[in-house]
Amino acid sequence: MSFTQSSLKIGELATGQDLTLPIFSHKCESPTAPSVYIQANVHGAEVQGNAVIYQLMQLLEHYTICGDITLVPLANPLGINQKSGEFTLGRFDPITGVNWNREYLDHQVDVKAWYAANDTLSDDELITHYKSMLLDACHQRLSHEWGITTGHQQAVMLQTMAHQADIVLDLHTGPKSCKHLYCPEYDAKAAAFFSIPYTLFIPNDFGGAMDESIFCPWWQLAEHMQSVGRNFDLPVSAFTLELGSQENINLADALIDAKGILAYLSERGVIEQKVMAAEMTRYACYLKDYKKYHSPLGGMVEYQAEVGEPLKAGDPLANILRIDLYGTEKALTTLSLKQDCVPILHFASASVYQGTELYKVMTKVFEI
Amino acid sequence: MSFTQSSLKIGELATGQDLTLPIFSHKCESPTAPSVYIQANVHGAEVQGNAVIYQLMQLLEHYTICGDITLVPLANPLGINQKSGEFTLGRFDPITGVNWNREYLDHQVDVKAWYAANDTLSDDELITHYKSMLLDACHQRLSHEWGITTGHQQAVMLQTMAHQADIVLDLHTGPKSCKHLYCPEYDAKAAAFFSIPYTLFIPNDFGGAMDESIFCPWWQLAEHMQSVGRNFDLPVSAFTLELGSQENINLADALIDAKGILAYLSERGVIEQKVMAAEMTRYACYLKDYKKYHSPLGGMVEYQAEVGEPLKAGDPLANILRIDLYGTEKALTTLSLKQDCVPILHFASASVYQGTELYKVMTKVFEI
Amino acid sequence: MSFTQSSLKIGELATGQDLTLPIFSHKCESPTAPSVYIQANVHGAEVQGNAVIYQLMQLLEHYTICGDITLVPLANPLGINQKSGEFTLGRFDPITGVNWNREYLDHQVDVKAWYAANDTLSDDELITHYKSMLLDACHQRLSHEWGITTGHQQAVMLQTMAHQADIVLDLHTGPKSCKHLYCPEYDAKAAAFFSIPYTLFIPNDFGGAMDESIFCPWWQLAEHMQSVGRNFDLPVSAFTLELGSQENINLADALIDAKGILAYLSERGVIEQKVMAAEMTRYACYLKDYKKYHSPLGGMVEYQAEVGEPLKAGDPLANILRIDLYGTEKALTTLSLKQDCVPILHFASASVYQGTELYKVMTKVFEI
Amino acid sequence: MSFTQSSLKIGELATGQDLTLPIFSHKCESPTAPSVYIQANVHGAEVQGNAVIYQLMQLLEHYTICGDITLVPLANPLGINQKSGEFTLGRFDPITGVNWNREYLDHQVDVKAWYAANDTLSDDELITHYKSMLLDACHQRLSHEWGITTGHQQAVMLQTMAHQADIVLDLHTGPKSCKHLYCPEYDAKAAAFFSIPYTLFIPNDFGGAMDESIFCPWWQLAEHMQSVGRNFDLPVSAFTLELGSQENINLADALIDAKGILAYLSERGVIEQKVMAAEMTRYACYLKDYKKYHSPLGGMVEYQAEVGEPLKAGDPLANILRIDLYGTEKALTTLSLKQDCVPILHFASASVYQGTELYKVMTKVFEI
Repeated sequence: MSFTQSSLKIGELATGQDLTLPIFSHKCESPTAPSVYIQANVHGAEVQGNAVIYQLMQLLEHYTICGDITLVPLANPLGINQKSGEFTLGRFDPITGVNWNREYLDHQVDVKAWYAANDTLSDDELITHYKSMLLDACHQRLSHEWGITTGHQQAVMLQTMAHQADIVLDLHTGPKSCKHLYCPEYDAKAAAFFSIPYTLFIPNDFGGAMDESIFCPWWQLAEHMQSVGRNFDLPVSAFTLELGSQENINLADALIDAKGILAYLSERGVIEQKVMAAEMTRYACYLKDYKKYHSPLGGMVEYQAEVGEPLKAGDPLANILRIDLYGTEKALTTLSLKQDCVPILHFASASVYQGTELYKVMTKVFEI
Repeated sequence: MSFTQSSLKIGELATGQDLTLPIFSHKCESPTAPSVYIQANVHGAEVQGNAVIYQLMQLLEHYTICGDITLVPLANPLGINQKSGEFTLGRFDPITGVNWNREYLDHQVDVKAWYAANDTLSDDELITHYKSMLLDACHQRLSHEWGITTGHQQAVMLQTMAHQADIVLDLHTGPKSCKHLYCPEYDAKAAAFFSIPYTLFIPNDFGGAMDESIFCPWWQLAEHMQSVGRNFDLPVSAFTLELGSQENINLADALIDAKGILAYLSERGVIEQKVMAAEMTRYACYLKDYKKYHSPLGGMVEYQAEVGEPLKAGDPLANILRIDLYGTEKALTTLSLKQDCVPILHFASASVYQGTELYKVMTKVFEI
Repeated sequence: MSFTQSSLKIGELATGQDLTLPIFSHKCESPTAPSVYIQANVHGAEVQGNAVIYQLMQLLEHYTICGDITLVPLANPLGINQKSGEFTLGRFDPITGVNWNREYLDHQVDVKAWYAANDTLSDDELITHYKSMLLDACHQRLSHEWGITTGHQQAVMLQTMAHQADIVLDLHTGPKSCKHLYCPEYDAKAAAFFSIPYTLFIPNDFGGAMDESIFCPWWQLAEHMQSVGRNFDLPVSAFTLELGSQENINLADALIDAKGILAYLSERGVIEQKVMAAEMTRYACYLKDYKKYHSPLGGMVEYQAEVGEPLKAGDPLANILRIDLYGTEKALTTLSLKQDCVPILHFASASVYQGTELYKVMTKVFEI
Repeated sequence: MSFTQSSLKIGELATGQDLTLPIFSHKCESPTAPSVYIQANVHGAEVQGNAVIYQLMQLLEHYTICGDITLVPLANPLGINQKSGEFTLGRFDPITGVNWNREYLDHQVDVKAWYAANDTLSDDELITHYKSMLLDACHQRLSHEWGITTGHQQAVMLQTMAHQADIVLDLHTGPKSCKHLYCPEYDAKAAAFFSIPYTLFIPNDFGGAMDESIFCPWWQLAEHMQSVGRNFDLPVSAFTLELGSQENINLADALIDAKGILAYLSERGVIEQKVMAAEMTRYACYLKDYKKYHSPLGGMVEYQAEVGEPLKAGDPLANILRIDLYGTEKALTTLSLKQDCVPILHFASASVYQGTELYKVMTKVFEI
């Protein structure tokens, strides 16, 4: 087997039992390619990434691996095991409500000051020092004298592993969703390799997610160096892959996504052999054009627009049934949007409060 | 419009606001047919029954109605509005854990004593007196000096309306489910009218559900009278219709089920016009042959067996992925059953604890 | 140390991790006294029993132990670790809603048939055979071909340990509660030993709880034997101790209850030394006189009656504030009862729906 | 009665029912004093503020009111009615996890630009225009073409009322807490009037809470004007009062806090009569010195330090019982802090994960 398994303790439960993660690692004796970190299931109901890692490990057994690889499935044991009724309540910490994917450390590096103190270094030296500084910050956060929250500890321990890699993939899903990719604008060409038809190009803003926690500090450094006249290629790539819908395991579909990841790793030289990306037309929009549509009324929802299918302005998005208003024209309301879009995901339940996020849609979509 | 709307208060929230139900009624001046009571959405996530009532009301506008009809959609406002994460946590009272559909009053009539005191009555008189006694018991329960629980009050108020009807339909759904009908054995022929391919024939046992709360007292009386040599036709029919999966509103499918109900009402003379039942092969099994299969291990689940499709003994039911055991033969376990069956429903989430109810299956299925 | 520690697997989580219990055992080489089984924290928020076991173990280090002792703290790891907001949601299975303390196996022994087949046995032989039959039933339930639910598996594994002991104590707490004891009527004199002022004398009915699952089968046998003219002393004692309020750890108070248990064990000869029961006036009522009072309206609650303090008929039990009705006489309603009672526990939250169980009170209380 | 009652719709439930707030208003014909807005119970379990508003209304019936007063108890109906087990899960939106008190609109006024365009106005004109601009921003947010989330809609509707007042009080509680006040640094002298012994002086940072949403835009304007040489007194006062512990209604204690509020309103001229503040030594610290201490391990917690009582460095804060480690020195761990502090609040449950926020403590406390 190409992978060795270990276990990482990331917390303790009220009963005293350890919260642990399984870690699968491949170490190269003399790596010639970038190192890779892939995690899955940070949101408890978003389980498909585990199947993708399973298929990816099986695929990788047949390839020559040229870079170190670390795989962390089941990355949020507390969230995964948190059932509420027949579903998994794994999107936020059950005590605090904080989204498990908004817990990563915001480094808030003063890049101006840091670069002023290190501007005589070569690019390679810069990378070494900067990475070391980021890791130190994580370690300090973990050993803070006032302690650290359950979710922040888990996140920063994951982040510590991710900071050590050159390529970071965070495997998520939407609620009821088509596949889509969060891709930083500076790394746009990477979107052509994954088996994912829709891409969101995201700017250099930290909102708390894993991918941002990895690339933002480097992107900020690169932008500052650019502003003082030195070109610097970002040494890290970080993406969030949204692999369809939550509460779903599909091994055949996982194989498709594992092959997409393999194609990207092949492009980056992580495996020696050439693996071609799946042929498909790929589309994208900018994050500012990714819109959340909130239900203008409470009621029962018949979702009409299919995720991943373009929708014309004025076409039916959803019907809201208000049987309490039977006999009036408000008994059934058809919602639509004023502009063309591609619905990417919709809410998981068939009933909503007024204001529930009903759909997220891409607008101003272009082919890439 | 054939229906008049009213509102029934069935509780008070912590903020003091009333919990109310919308009630749609059709009253005949001189009814010549049985009276009907239909409710929906007693489990909060099982919303499709509201759509069926909506379609049924629209259909009924075009027919001559010969019996009184009472329709109660949205029958559990507390449960329907109880969200937990992206789903509706509406299966049990959030405070006590008691299943909302196990809260109906168990009359525990001493039928021997009651009949001994009333055996000189004609059948019609018996029915009037017995029904009156059941309603009195409900009223007494509602006005108990030590009060009544939130869920029991709601249930007994619904039951009070249902006891006054001759035909009672309780519209539910399963988690991920094909359509199926709970039908008391004494009323087996009714199963041929609904647009539902699978029927469970249930015996004369009270487990707390609406349908049982209606027919059990009458069935017990009829059985006792039979045992002392008097034949007595049960004057009530009560069924639970499981209309597919929870968290789903589908108006086209609701129309199919509304037509099935219409066919049954037509057969019973509630509408003057003849409406034919949908043609389909219908199957059934006895409740004792309806089996719950619990997951023998914890893990991620790929559901393999389709609900509503016969499954041979030994064929794959589900795969359990245990990526923490990658590299061993326990990484992927295919579960199967030792006997032929028809899977009727499966768990809603894609991850399970050991012991989670994974599938419910019919065994010893026969055509009806 | 007098105790050896082991671990028992009672389930698997969705992540694949084992659910385990810590077990502390003392084994006598040649026991001369009854064997003891004590568990705590089957309801997740009822943590004080762990502290009592901790204190009891420390006390027992100083005594001569004459019988085998098995101690199982933290007996419900899933429930204990199930947080919802700032509290522990550990009263019922989060998936099914089933109360963790209603999951024990109902043996439903046909005592008439069993005794008919075994009536030539001596008392000692009867005990051996009957116990063996109960254990077999547990083992069969655990290895059922259709599996077993998560909660039932945990319960029956605990029950299997308990059936092997002569004395069984299940340590619980109420929500906001004074200390009280559930004591079977046949074992009434035991109530004088625990450090608990209020006792409920309970009849021979199985409702699903641990204590009942242990004594009911024996009590049924004894009653049947009595009815056919043979006297038979029940060989088991089983009690539920309600040790104050949930969500509370108090080591000093735990020491008081540990000493009460020690006094009972001393009386039963489990420790060689004499330990006197705490002196206090003890009161009791029959279970039929233990009343649940449900809030007649929704609103904010000011609890007025102290738990454990006698309350006269008409004295204030609680105020319900309905600020939405300010300016009317319904803005503040004082609730009271029509009969004298001792409030034993009240609801944990300060706001209620109509129908929420507000208080449980003993009526017809007598000194014992 | 001095107050007239109205109702405001702030949302719709899945059943279609309106979410409404009760509003109590006193309107002066010709007000001579600042206007007042007081809300309570935005966190569902923090009910005591309703009792304070109740007592305040009763007190105000006996005074001459010189300014308009708007009182909004029960300000979060969805949160208040959201039970989970025996407690209220009302701290965050059950769907999104977002804290109900982090939903207010961040105006992000470009004060430099706004002032440049308005610097010829008098102070009174500035106030009128600026307030109008803030209200417009709220209205625009509420009518956004893509809709608005459930929680944000509720918050911005509350904020709209609050922006129209000169004095804003938001009544909260802690989990298990002593009384404390969040007071902006610019308004420090106000802390002397409330019946609250501990005050946190907070800086000009917006974190999403009601009080900040009110004073931050004005404080930012004032600071900018100061920086360009014009003095400007902030025309608004906004405070969060933490009135002890959640899940508690105590009318006698509510009267004490109502009198504290009355003393502040008297000082501000809102009532004509003089009401003296309660005499007590009052203490404070800066927000930067208000520390959260997270449990360094999982386990059962015996809270040792009393809230509101100074605690010396090294003195016991809490004991963590780990009965699974009985027989080792880790079975009982006493936690303490390295510096003197006043514990202000602690976690509500008696069991914690590693990382649970155990205590919040004031350090560097000074008398005010």
